[in-house]
Amino acid sequence: MAKRRTAPVERKITETAKDIQTKILRSKSPTMATPVRSLSNVKYQAKVGYFEMLGKKKQRTLTVSTVKTFAQTLKMMSLAKQLIGTNDMATKREAYYISKNWGKAGFSEQSESDTIMDDVEAMLAVNREQLRFTPEEKGGDVAGRLIVIDTDSKGKKIKIDCTKFGSGAYSIPTEVENLKFDSHAKFILAVETAGMFQRLVKYDYWKKTGCILISMGGVPTRACRRFIRRLTDQLKVPVYAFVDGDPYGYFNIYRTLKVGSGNAAHMNKFFCVPSVRFLGVTPQDIITYKLPTHPLKEVDIKRAKDALRNDPFVKHHKPWQKAIEQMLKMGSRVEQQAFAKHGLGFVVSKYLPDKLKNPSKFLP
Amino acid sequence: MAKRRTAPVERKITETAKDIQTKILRSKSPTMATPVRSLSNVKYQAKVGYFEMLGKKKQRTLTVSTVKTFAQTLKMMSLAKQLIGTNDMATKREAYYISKNWGKAGFSEQSESDTIMDDVEAMLAVNREQLRFTPEEKGGDVAGRLIVIDTDSKGKKIKIDCTKFGSGAYSIPTEVENLKFDSHAKFILAVETAGMFQRLVKYDYWKKTGCILISMGGVPTRACRRFIRRLTDQLKVPVYAFVDGDPYGYFNIYRTLKVGSGNAAHMNKFFCVPSVRFLGVTPQDIITYKLPTHPLKEVDIKRAKDALRNDPFVKHHKPWQKAIEQMLKMGSRVEQQAFAKHGLGFVVSKYLPDKLKNPSKFLP
Repeated sequence: MAKRRTAPVERKITETAKDIQTKILRSKSPTMATPVRSLSNVKYQAKVGYFEMLGKKKQRTLTVSTVKTFAQTLKMMSLAKQLIGTNDMATKREAYYISKNWGKAGFSEQSESDTIMDDVEAMLAVNREQLRFTPEEKGGDVAGRLIVIDTDSKGKKIKIDCTKFGSGAYSIPTEVENLKFDSHAKFILAVETAGMFQRLVKYDYWKKTGCILISMGGVPTRACRRFIRRLTDQLKVPVYAFVDGDPYGYFNIYRTLKVGSGNAAHMNKFFCVPSVRFLGVTPQDIITYKLPTHPLKEVDIKRAKDALRNDPFVKHHKPWQKAIEQMLKMGSRVEQQAFAKHGLGFVVSKYLPDKLKNPSKFLP
Repeated sequence: MAKRRTAPVERKITETAKDIQTKILRSKSPTMATPVRSLSNVKYQAKVGYFEMLGKKKQRTLTVSTVKTFAQTLKMMSLAKQLIGTNDMATKREAYYISKNWGKAGFSEQSESDTIMDDVEAMLAVNREQLRFTPEEKGGDVAGRLIVIDTDSKGKKIKIDCTKFGSGAYSIPTEVENLKFDSHAKFILAVETAGMFQRLVKYDYWKKTGCILISMGGVPTRACRRFIRRLTDQLKVPVYAFVDGDPYGYFNIYRTLKVGSGNAAHMNKFFCVPSVRFLGVTPQDIITYKLPTHPLKEVDIKRAKDALRNDPFVKHHKPWQKAIEQMLKMGSRVEQQAFAKHGLGFVVSKYLPDKLKNPSKFLP
C-alpha cells in the first residue's frame, strides 16, 4: 500500500467525533454545523478567484427527529476514516451499499447517502476525494507534453508519458489527489468536445506548440477540474479554455471550471482553476472568422439573461457582459467545430495561432 | 503520413460513382439502393452470431424531388474518398460544417448529414469509420495485460502498455481500425460502470487474474465495441460482460454488444462481439449472494416484456427467457456495486472467482 498522506483529514474526523462524544458524556445535546449550500451563501472576488462561501450554517442538533440523520452522518465519517486508514476508496454508490450493513442507519436511496456525504464534506471543509469517496464518472482525457507520476498498489512509482498515446489518450482517474507531474509544457488547452480534442491530436497540435491538451467532454467532472487545478498549481503555465460559443459553454463549462458553482461552493477552493482564461469561441469570432452559426434557443437566451442579472462572476466582469450582449444581439451561437467550414486544418493552422498571439485579449 | 490501407473502400466509392456516371451518360435515370434500417429487416442466427440484415432495400432515383439528397450523397462519398486519400478523418459534426461549402447541397441540420452518412455506409456495406467519419464521443477505458500498437502522425509505431497506468487508464480513441495488439491475457472483462472498473483496478484485479479490463461507461460506443471485437478476433480469448442486473444492462448494453441493434444492422458484422458471454449480475445472483435490490421500474417491466415478445435474440435463447421471467417474478433489479454490502473486496475475492470457475454456466 502507498504511504498514507491524509492524516490531517483523519484528525478532523476524530476531533469532530470527540466533540460530540464529550457533549454526550456531559449530558448536553450534541450538534453538528454544516454550511448552507446555495448561491445565496456565495460571494465572488476576482482576487480570490472563485466563489467563496459566506458564513451561513445550518445546525443539526441530536433530537428524536434527527437521530437517524445524525447517526448516518457519524457512520459516514467513520467509513471515511476507515477508508483513509486502509488507503482504500469507495465510490458514492458503493458507500450507499455499505450502509446496508448499518442496521437502522442504512440509507434507502443513494440520493440520501450522497446528501450526507456532501454534509460531511462541507462540515469538515475538505473535499470528498480526501474523505476517499470518489465519483462514479471518469475524469477526462489528456495528450501532450506531460508525464504523470502515479503509484501502483505496492506504492511503486509509475511514469505515464502523455506524448506516447498515438491517437488514444491518457484517461484521468477519478482520484487525482496523489498524482505528481513532470512537464515542460508551454500552456494547457482545455477543450470542450472529444471531437475537437481528436482533431487537435490528429493534427499534432500539442507537438507543434508544446502544450498539454485536455478533453473535458462537456462540463468537466470534479476529477478533471482538480486535475487541471493541480497541474496549474504545480506547472505555473497559462491555461486556456476552448469551448462552444454558447451560454452552456460560457457558464456551465467555463464559469464552473474557473470559479465554481453555487451549490457546491464548499469545495470551490479545491476544484476551481482561477487562472484559466477564455480563448474562444467568442461571439466576435463568429464575425471575424465568418463562421456558420445556429440561432440561439429559448433556453440559451434565458440562461444568458439570467447570467447578466444574477451571476456574480458575470456581474464582476465587464468584458463578459459585453460578449453576452453581443451574442444576444446577434441571436446566434456557434460550435467549436464550425471552423471546419474553412477546411479541417483551419483551426490548427489559423484560428488557434491567431488567437495565441494575444492571450492578453482573452476574455477573463 | 501512415501507409494507406483502405484502398478497397476507395474503389467501392469510385465504382458506385462510375455506375451513376455511366447511367447519366446513357441518358438513363441513375439510382442508388440502400438497405432498410429497422428491426423488421433483421434476422438472428446463433451460428452467425449477430443480427443480420434481410434484403429489403429502398431505391433512390434521381428526380426533381430527390436531386438535393442525391447530390448530397455523392458529395458525402466524395468527401470520404478525399479523407481516405489524405489519411485524414472528420467527425460527424465536422462533416456537417464542411458541407457549408457545398453550395445548395449544404445541409441545414447535422441530423440531415448524419442520415446521409448512414445511407452511404449502408449502401457501400462498410462502416463509417472506414469512410473516415468518426463519432464525437470517446470510446471507453482499458487497463490490464495488453499492449496497444498505434502509429503517430509520421507513421512511427507507438507501443502503449496498459499495465502501466497506475490508477488511470488508456482511453480508446474514436478510430480503432488501425490499432494492433500484443497480449497474453487470459480473458477480457467488459464492465458497465466506471465505478466498478475503478474498484477492479484499485484491487489489482487484472494483475491477479491476467485479464484485460474494459470500462464501457454504459452502452458501449461504436469505437468501444469495435475495439473489443478486434481484440477478440486477434487474441482468441474469452470475453465476459459484467453489467447491472436490469433490463437496461441485459438488452441495451449486453445484447447490443453481442448481437447489435435493429436500426444499425448494416454494421453489426463489424461491431458485434458474438463471442461475449454474460457473467453477471443475473437475477439468480441476487438470491445466491443475498444482494440488496431496487424494485423494477415501469420502464424495466415494459422493456423486459417487450424483449420476451419481440427480441429475436431473447426468443432464440431459452436461458435468457428464464432469467427474464425470474427477474419479473422477483420484481427487482440489482446494480453491480451491490456486492459492496459484503465489503468492498467481496466482488474481487468472492463473486468474480466463484463465477469464473464455471464460465460454461454463463448466460449466452
